[in-house]
Amino acid sequence: MKNDYRVAGKIWIARGKETFLGYGRIKLLERIREHGSISAAARSMGMGYRHAWRLVDSMNKAAPEALVKTVTGGAGGGGAKLTGAGERAIELFWRIYKEMEDFLENETRDVKERLK
Amino acid sequence: MKNDYRVAGKIWIARGKETFLGYGRIKLLERIREHGSISAAARSMGMGYRHAWRLVDSMNKAAPEALVKTVTGGAGGGGAKLTGAGERAIELFWRIYKEMEDFLENETRDVKERLK
Repeated sequence: MKNDYRVAGKIWIARGKETFLGYGRIKLLERIREHGSISAAARSMGMGYRHAWRLVDSMNKAAPEALVKTVTGGAGGGGAKLTGAGERAIELFWRIYKEMEDFLENETRDVKERLK
Repeated sequence: MKNDYRVAGKIWIARGKETFLGYGRIKLLERIREHGSISAAARSMGMGYRHAWRLVDSMNKAAPEALVKTVTGGAGGGGAKLTGAGERAIELFWRIYKEMEDFLENETRDVKERLK
């Protein structure tokens, strides 16, 4: 039988009991960077605007300084952009995420060895 | 403000797309070892018998050899006990779980340093 055992996992950064940064939130930040607005970012992910807005608000409140700055009015009807703290949050998350992937790969090698 | 950032995570052992062993399943195996029956183990955790039985069946089918053996009939109306493979599965899971805890602690130290 095929040895398709693997160690799977999930990580996120919490603040107290609340999620601060997780995979979906980081993807949203990246889309905001790309699209320049929360509504366009949300739309591009098939996420409701209100949900996206709440996630951004939750991240901004949990962060030492805001990750996303919104700009109201103007020709384009307002937009949103990442701050330096937002860029650093993305980097920090992916670094930990990649270390987690390495960890899971190593454990998977061991588990495949034991479960056969 | 209190620095209560932390890196949180979850791990499980999967087989293909199915969960094989996770925290709750391992707790159930330990209760079966302690109580000698699936129904008593389930009751002790406030878990429904059918749910517990399905979890055991799923683990037994996904494992290289059964983790739990059921004994029908007899004075006690049947029971269940762990096999050697069941004991090894518990050990394997807790070892990985503890390494994961160490990983999360290290990452948390780093994150606290960066988010302040």
